[in-house]
Amino acid sequence: MPGRKIIIDTDPGQDDAVAILLALASAELDVLGLTIVAGNVSLHYTVEAARKVVELAERTEVPIYAGCSRPISKPLVTAEHVHGATGIDGVDFADPTVPVQSEHAVDFIIRTLRAEPAGDVTLVTLGPLTNIGLALVKAPDIAPRVREIVAIMGSLHQGGNITPLGDFNTYVDPEAADLVLQSGIPIVMVPMDITHQVLNTRERLDAWRATGTRCGAAAADLMQFSEAFDLEKYGWGAAPLHDPCAIVYLLAPELFSGRTINVRVSTDGTVSTGMTVVDWWRVSGREPNCDYLLEVDVPALYDLMTERLALLP
Amino acid sequence: MPGRKIIIDTDPGQDDAVAILLALASAELDVLGLTIVAGNVSLHYTVEAARKVVELAERTEVPIYAGCSRPISKPLVTAEHVHGATGIDGVDFADPTVPVQSEHAVDFIIRTLRAEPAGDVTLVTLGPLTNIGLALVKAPDIAPRVREIVAIMGSLHQGGNITPLGDFNTYVDPEAADLVLQSGIPIVMVPMDITHQVLNTRERLDAWRATGTRCGAAAADLMQFSEAFDLEKYGWGAAPLHDPCAIVYLLAPELFSGRTINVRVSTDGTVSTGMTVVDWWRVSGREPNCDYLLEVDVPALYDLMTERLALLP
Amino acid sequence: MPGRKIIIDTDPGQDDAVAILLALASAELDVLGLTIVAGNVSLHYTVEAARKVVELAERTEVPIYAGCSRPISKPLVTAEHVHGATGIDGVDFADPTVPVQSEHAVDFIIRTLRAEPAGDVTLVTLGPLTNIGLALVKAPDIAPRVREIVAIMGSLHQGGNITPLGDFNTYVDPEAADLVLQSGIPIVMVPMDITHQVLNTRERLDAWRATGTRCGAAAADLMQFSEAFDLEKYGWGAAPLHDPCAIVYLLAPELFSGRTINVRVSTDGTVSTGMTVVDWWRVSGREPNCDYLLEVDVPALYDLMTERLALLP
Amino acid sequence: MPGRKIIIDTDPGQDDAVAILLALASAELDVLGLTIVAGNVSLHYTVEAARKVVELAERTEVPIYAGCSRPISKPLVTAEHVHGATGIDGVDFADPTVPVQSEHAVDFIIRTLRAEPAGDVTLVTLGPLTNIGLALVKAPDIAPRVREIVAIMGSLHQGGNITPLGDFNTYVDPEAADLVLQSGIPIVMVPMDITHQVLNTRERLDAWRATGTRCGAAAADLMQFSEAFDLEKYGWGAAPLHDPCAIVYLLAPELFSGRTINVRVSTDGTVSTGMTVVDWWRVSGREPNCDYLLEVDVPALYDLMTERLALLP
Repeated sequence: MPGRKIIIDTDPGQDDAVAILLALASAELDVLGLTIVAGNVSLHYTVEAARKVVELAERTEVPIYAGCSRPISKPLVTAEHVHGATGIDGVDFADPTVPVQSEHAVDFIIRTLRAEPAGDVTLVTLGPLTNIGLALVKAPDIAPRVREIVAIMGSLHQGGNITPLGDFNTYVDPEAADLVLQSGIPIVMVPMDITHQVLNTRERLDAWRATGTRCGAAAADLMQFSEAFDLEKYGWGAAPLHDPCAIVYLLAPELFSGRTINVRVSTDGTVSTGMTVVDWWRVSGREPNCDYLLEVDVPALYDLMTERLALLP
Repeated sequence: MPGRKIIIDTDPGQDDAVAILLALASAELDVLGLTIVAGNVSLHYTVEAARKVVELAERTEVPIYAGCSRPISKPLVTAEHVHGATGIDGVDFADPTVPVQSEHAVDFIIRTLRAEPAGDVTLVTLGPLTNIGLALVKAPDIAPRVREIVAIMGSLHQGGNITPLGDFNTYVDPEAADLVLQSGIPIVMVPMDITHQVLNTRERLDAWRATGTRCGAAAADLMQFSEAFDLEKYGWGAAPLHDPCAIVYLLAPELFSGRTINVRVSTDGTVSTGMTVVDWWRVSGREPNCDYLLEVDVPALYDLMTERLALLP
Repeated sequence: MPGRKIIIDTDPGQDDAVAILLALASAELDVLGLTIVAGNVSLHYTVEAARKVVELAERTEVPIYAGCSRPISKPLVTAEHVHGATGIDGVDFADPTVPVQSEHAVDFIIRTLRAEPAGDVTLVTLGPLTNIGLALVKAPDIAPRVREIVAIMGSLHQGGNITPLGDFNTYVDPEAADLVLQSGIPIVMVPMDITHQVLNTRERLDAWRATGTRCGAAAADLMQFSEAFDLEKYGWGAAPLHDPCAIVYLLAPELFSGRTINVRVSTDGTVSTGMTVVDWWRVSGREPNCDYLLEVDVPALYDLMTERLALLP
Repeated sequence: MPGRKIIIDTDPGQDDAVAILLALASAELDVLGLTIVAGNVSLHYTVEAARKVVELAERTEVPIYAGCSRPISKPLVTAEHVHGATGIDGVDFADPTVPVQSEHAVDFIIRTLRAEPAGDVTLVTLGPLTNIGLALVKAPDIAPRVREIVAIMGSLHQGGNITPLGDFNTYVDPEAADLVLQSGIPIVMVPMDITHQVLNTRERLDAWRATGTRCGAAAADLMQFSEAFDLEKYGWGAAPLHDPCAIVYLLAPELFSGRTINVRVSTDGTVSTGMTVVDWWRVSGREPNCDYLLEVDVPALYDLMTERLALLP
């Protein structure tokens, strides 16, 4: 049976890299392409990181498309203090040789959604939503053709990680995030409420290493590099795992539970800008527009990840 | 030893009523006056409720001052669907006879802060911050004379209870809340993160009734009336206890813990208006302006409340 | 016949001073009091300036009430670069001896409106609307008792004078301005569109001096001091006359024309904050809330002013 | 000598149609293409209108590119009440046969700016700035390659025509407008302050008809259709001429004067959203980002237009 068709829109980032590896390791998923956006680091480095990751996985047939290098309405904010200069510091990669496609990521998204049967393609977003937002403004006809968007964004109970209440992906391009939320596309939101439960303990990372694969070891090394910032900030014994949770959701949605509610994004330019306004208790009167996940079976998640990383080179 | 001087600014509300009873029962506190504001219900009813409560406690010497009947910048929002028409539905009170002072609550606050030694008077706010906000605009000289403000407001991990992320007290008058937060006065914020841990189980309410006092029984009856809304909404086995937590904090601050951080209020008039922007992880660069409480020893809190309710008539 | 009862709420300012003189010179007006607010300069100096002006006019029986020293929601902005340190630089006044009333301006406004017959008292506002805004929040019952508010504020065709589109009085306290506009009180707005037509040519100021009165000479000297800023900024041959236009309107409304429309104030905290949103063409669907003046008979205005200044000492 | 290279980004609209005719009649301009956007009417009709206009002018070699059918951040607002269902009601056009290019307008803009020498291509924008905004987000490298943008947008002294202070082009897509204004591209803003001086008196329209050309007659008929709305609204004897002013500026900039200042757009979502914040008096401290035109030689403008319309079929 062919896999579920997905486009991964991503700004690697160590955790994006692990998410990509996980997707490439999973036969249930047919990765039509990686579309790259600026976010964790600048577009130059996020594109380069994506190339390195497909080479690491020996999956260079997966096409890579460079997308937007800046958000819609404000200067780009990046997070080299977390991810290092390359976005995937922590592993020594060779200079990548796999080419980048000449088509712009936004156009690949539009073309693919028009070419594939309506309702076939899922968008998995691991970074700011600039590429998706632009595609929807440029070609609104694609909205009803998207099966669903599984997005790493949002926070209800965890505060923010870039402003007091804004998560990085939402804050970097709030206008894009809000227009995607108002697009009518079914959205599954994988927020910090989920990812802050998913903690990379040493045992869990060691399990990845114990797969004996190059990719398992790299995944562990990547996460160990980026954990420094979180460990100091949160004072927890282990750091959260973000982007791979979206891929695990696609593989095993039964590990997650949540609620179908309305989420909007504050774009006001003052103290609350860039935060998700999550109507968990349905008091706003606004129509539900996403499945907001709140609980996850963490041990099962790690078991699944380890199992899949073992399948890679 | 004389008690700590406090003014209770309040919009009763069943839980305000219980908070007032608790304060009146506590010799450590010297209640200089009750200043009333519109909020849970209109000012007419919040004033009447305050009068009934001091009569119930046989403490009619505590002066009651009527304050603002509307917020600073927008129409009043009330919550009769929670509290009933009188704000304190659930107990049959006689019509009150204790007089209301002729002085406006805002002026009583200003006069008292100027008359008492600087640093002596604590403001306990159980409702929207209109009265306090107006006092600070009318008489900025009082700000450095306030010992601290202990405020029932805010939410970090619990969402809101009137908008997706706005707690009632903040949302009803966001401009007042934000100006108080920027006043330089030391603030202890007792947010929904605390009060949603403090659940009125049947055993706990029965313990109040078991004091054998009229006030203990009334406190239990009041809480049992207002719990209907929360029980249905949250689907929990018991409803949260809000305003008395501020009084317990004054009596036993050691039961609480939190963090000294910055909190601002969104006043933007769109989707996030009226929510507290809580910088728990100190990422905003803004100066800390309050002690935000996050944890509480719940059994000890109820033990203390029961002990005190037993001292009333 | 007794004069029309007015309270002048003011932040002198040279042009406020001339407006006060003009009012005191006019038998048609019964100046119940001057209520003072911070604005052009700090409250200390605006109060002192008001005292000097009533002494200059030998009208020390007119009571002066100090009001708010800060706006509702943000730090005070002043304009010493226009008005000099005292607000009324340009004339050497003796140190004033007339006392300031002990009652707060906000309370005088409330008390007077309640004591006088409903519909008798007009409020003339020459500065930021903090005092009026606070009075309306503290005592909403006074709103239907106000005859009308004649306010120096707003701009439609003239840009702003403190931000690109914000006039000083609106910008200094936008929250107060907007709540007054939403109060239901009849408002006559005397905007920069009027006052930028009213230019203090040398001939006009000389006509004031030619009255031979001390007050006429002082009025001319005051305006000549504060004109420097405007002359350089606008490059016009003469500087605008602001606050006295409100008094002239009361004396001779037939000199003015305008339109009954809706005006709101932007309070968004970003690029447009503090500007009046004037719905001149009635496209917003919002109910009219003020008479917005747009045209004035300038020669007749100056003739009237000169005639009145001649009546003073 | 080859003409100045321009791309006309437009949402016809009767006045857009006349602007296009004027450009096509002018040898000084090399119209590289028409890029179409939704605005005055929906994209379907604005594209069809553009096709009809190039056929009327017998200039079907000018390529037409369909662009965005919706603004970036909010639902499309149109103005059929002004322009009629087709956008160019008032003239009976045959069904157009000239094809629309398959390339998206945004991509044509990007491709052309990259292909032509840097600094060669001018963008003339007659509608909402969605296409230009999207091109700048998708391909920020084009910004320094644009010679200048001549934009029909903005209002300082004229109020708005869709909200109290918002002009239609700015209001329909404020986010696009603001990002273009912050792009660093030299901008000439042709605001309502200009176009409300340019009034289509009967004599002026008759002069177009007197050219004896089909296009001259059509231009007059188009303007006569759309004037009904303005004549009733403004009560003026003639209606304003908007979009052709941008073309006249390119042909004869010496007919215009203005000031180099900063303009931003309010995107706050409340009462001021969609208006230009024009810092005419340079009080904001923000860097100038456009030449804001304020005066125009109206008779010379009409003479030039009539002369050019005479050159068309």
